[in-house]
Amino acid sequence: MSFSQLESQFRRIAHLEHVAAILSWDEAVMMPEAAGHARADAMSALGVVVHEHLTAPQLNDWLAEAEHEAGAGKLEATQSANLREMKRLVRRASALPSKLVEAASRAQLRCEQAWRKQRAKNDWEGFAPLLAEVVKLKREAAGALGQALNVRPYDALLDEFEPYGSSKDIDQWFGDLREFLPGLIDRVIEHQSKQTFEAPKGPFARAAQEALGRQLMEVVGFDMQRGRLDVSHHPFCGGVPTDVRVTTRYDETDFSSGLLGVLHETGHAKYEQGRPLDWIDQPVGQARGMSIHEGNSLLQEMQISRGREFLRFAAQHIAKAFPEAASAQPGAFTADNLARLFTRVQRGKIRVGADEVTYPCHVLLRYDLERDLIGGKLEVSDIPDAWDAGMKELLNISTAGDYRDGCMQDVHWPSGAFGYFPTYTLGAMTAAQLYAAAVRAQPSIPNDIAQGNFSAINAWLKESIWSKASSLTTGELMEQATGKPLDPTDFKRHLEHRYLEEV
Amino acid sequence: MSFSQLESQFRRIAHLEHVAAILSWDEAVMMPEAAGHARADAMSALGVVVHEHLTAPQLNDWLAEAEHEAGAGKLEATQSANLREMKRLVRRASALPSKLVEAASRAQLRCEQAWRKQRAKNDWEGFAPLLAEVVKLKREAAGALGQALNVRPYDALLDEFEPYGSSKDIDQWFGDLREFLPGLIDRVIEHQSKQTFEAPKGPFARAAQEALGRQLMEVVGFDMQRGRLDVSHHPFCGGVPTDVRVTTRYDETDFSSGLLGVLHETGHAKYEQGRPLDWIDQPVGQARGMSIHEGNSLLQEMQISRGREFLRFAAQHIAKAFPEAASAQPGAFTADNLARLFTRVQRGKIRVGADEVTYPCHVLLRYDLERDLIGGKLEVSDIPDAWDAGMKELLNISTAGDYRDGCMQDVHWPSGAFGYFPTYTLGAMTAAQLYAAAVRAQPSIPNDIAQGNFSAINAWLKESIWSKASSLTTGELMEQATGKPLDPTDFKRHLEHRYLEEV
Repeated sequence: MSFSQLESQFRRIAHLEHVAAILSWDEAVMMPEAAGHARADAMSALGVVVHEHLTAPQLNDWLAEAEHEAGAGKLEATQSANLREMKRLVRRASALPSKLVEAASRAQLRCEQAWRKQRAKNDWEGFAPLLAEVVKLKREAAGALGQALNVRPYDALLDEFEPYGSSKDIDQWFGDLREFLPGLIDRVIEHQSKQTFEAPKGPFARAAQEALGRQLMEVVGFDMQRGRLDVSHHPFCGGVPTDVRVTTRYDETDFSSGLLGVLHETGHAKYEQGRPLDWIDQPVGQARGMSIHEGNSLLQEMQISRGREFLRFAAQHIAKAFPEAASAQPGAFTADNLARLFTRVQRGKIRVGADEVTYPCHVLLRYDLERDLIGGKLEVSDIPDAWDAGMKELLNISTAGDYRDGCMQDVHWPSGAFGYFPTYTLGAMTAAQLYAAAVRAQPSIPNDIAQGNFSAINAWLKESIWSKASSLTTGELMEQATGKPLDPTDFKRHLEHRYLEEV
Repeated sequence: MSFSQLESQFRRIAHLEHVAAILSWDEAVMMPEAAGHARADAMSALGVVVHEHLTAPQLNDWLAEAEHEAGAGKLEATQSANLREMKRLVRRASALPSKLVEAASRAQLRCEQAWRKQRAKNDWEGFAPLLAEVVKLKREAAGALGQALNVRPYDALLDEFEPYGSSKDIDQWFGDLREFLPGLIDRVIEHQSKQTFEAPKGPFARAAQEALGRQLMEVVGFDMQRGRLDVSHHPFCGGVPTDVRVTTRYDETDFSSGLLGVLHETGHAKYEQGRPLDWIDQPVGQARGMSIHEGNSLLQEMQISRGREFLRFAAQHIAKAFPEAASAQPGAFTADNLARLFTRVQRGKIRVGADEVTYPCHVLLRYDLERDLIGGKLEVSDIPDAWDAGMKELLNISTAGDYRDGCMQDVHWPSGAFGYFPTYTLGAMTAAQLYAAAVRAQPSIPNDIAQGNFSAINAWLKESIWSKASSLTTGELMEQATGKPLDPTDFKRHLEHRYLEEV
């Protein structure tokens, strides 16, 4: 009885979040800029209504009674998992005094708005006090959330993006990668210095890029009856499982950024479309967390779409999409050339422009700093030196005095999203481990992909990951799907194989 | 104090309705069809939340106290008007038992879904019992609402679309038109039988139609920084004042339907964009009602855009938009020819295809029948005969046995929208009266329009109508704007002038 009351409360919350998801897409894709203020008010009112539903006084009684029902064996496994997720959401929503939430929102908004201008001017001195205010309030929130969830303060922030995630695990995995990556990068750059490749020359008409993107989205398994492809400033995957909204942007001088953007977001989209419709409006039916989400997108983009098997299939369609360019430069549109082009490795200061091999170094650095910032072992004023030291150690690059393309390059910290960064590399590890397990289970998969046949890989992902939604924790999910807990072994093996062994 | 509590409650309601407005646009313009069920659930949850906010128990106390504050002279005029509108909304929301609301929704949904198939099959016998159920529940709702608002049952339904509207007034105005129209139609058809005109031949490329539509929207005063133009199955104007979403559809064999659709909806859009931003999230800041809204769209479409002054300006741009067609048929793209083309009068069975002169006959008939259906003077089984009699009297057309293009042609009754039909013709009367008053106040307006200059007419509308939002009743608004209550005189004069006197 209590459990069904909880279910209907959370059903309504899911419906309101459906509304919010479509509105967010609209804001990024459709809304005229001048409508921003009024829209922010409307979205914030909707957010308050959702929060009121998550903190309704009767929820605690219902949760307590449902715990009792669960203890008496009256709930099925999925219901128990649903209860676990409900508790997590209610605890998170109730842990923070609304004054702190408001103060943090204000500080973050102020810091993010200032950052947009200060970054362009390399103005660390102006930025630091605003970021310090964000960090101060975030430490306070992390403390309160940590108490409510009974975890360390940083882990309580991580939990927003990676439920039940632990910095202890991450320390260990990232420590392993820290040992491995700098040497690998040296060897890969040396190895690639002997490769030749040819960059396709445009222009690549936007309509042709879009048609190609749609075609390949459908090939890899996106259901166009339950979603759309549009354009936004930054590519993203939004919407809801019955209506998944993928976006990308097009560069007429380089088709690869738009196309790989589409394929990356389609990895997210397939996970969303594959979630079990029966539980879609309950917490247990939601996507598991960012590492599994990013695992799906990187599996699609990195493991598959930048790989030779897929490109053996896709090269012909890419060439057909751009007939003039392809006939002018036939050598540029071969699978081998595209594979070399899509896997070039180069050290650089900027995370978002980084390749598959150097990207984790950027994440390792940010994770170390944000964990210590929240933990009180590092202050905002220490960031520039720590950043420079980390970049030297990991990528052999000096960023001294360059805040713009150094510690001020990302929006995450000014906007208060501490705990997000590690999920990028957890996602890369997850992608490698899932793909290796899928191929072990179905050895035909690479060959199928070379034929443009995604049925086996999609069936494996649906069975092992998508259909499970949040019924298991990330740890349990990975263990059931791959036979072992998450670790960096498959990711490291993938990098060595692709970047050193493949011809 | 109570009044400010009311204001914040209604501010939140306005924010939630902002969300609903954008979602409705998305559903019509962007959403893949397969997402419809889940979206309906989400929208219905949002509707329930809004309804809960409108029927919150504390509202009655706040309203009573605010009445007291108003009585003690503590409220300004706009605040008092806001209080009047709040009371109306709360009374409407609270008047109906939720069981009746649910039963009516179910009956309407069932009837509307069946109607889509039954209409195609001319199946009156199958349709009648479903419509009878809708009417039965609607009579019940009209009775309860009428009691709460202290008006006649039909007027309580009318009030949803035309707040404070009265069937007594409508009876009188429509009685006048019933005397006037059949004879006028005879004379106009006789008059036009001597005219020659040339229909432009396509194809008219969709992109060119869209560019022309955008260009003329901006000419007539639509602010593209605060809105969009897109495509939907039926043209509409949605969104919110800071972000007005206009849609149309394009026929490549006939540019006029898309273009006049854009201009009609732009009339609605200018009203929305012109509402006072200071009150935008309060009931007093909402659009006044359907007759004023339709008055704005028909003023833009009928009074202005199908008229010779505007076409003197627009003809050159229309010809430029379709250079091949225009050079093949120069005579088809003159202002005079377009004016004749856009004002052809023909008797027909179908309301939505009707011209400016015959359209009100369709409305008069529907109004008579629905008023008597709700009033209990007519039963559903009487509709076909009454329909046929009305069509013979008003338009000299027999519809006997043709339910499809007779009494089953419109979605309004199956969907329960009783009280809506009269607002189309109230809008036509309003448009004529407003335009006549604007030209009296600013005699340069027709000439300005012939130059593509809309500043005077838009300034007059903003001052007289848009900026007033719901601070006055429709009756007060018309009286202040035009110096007299609404009546059909200016509409009749406009029809005689345009259809009999203009060369």
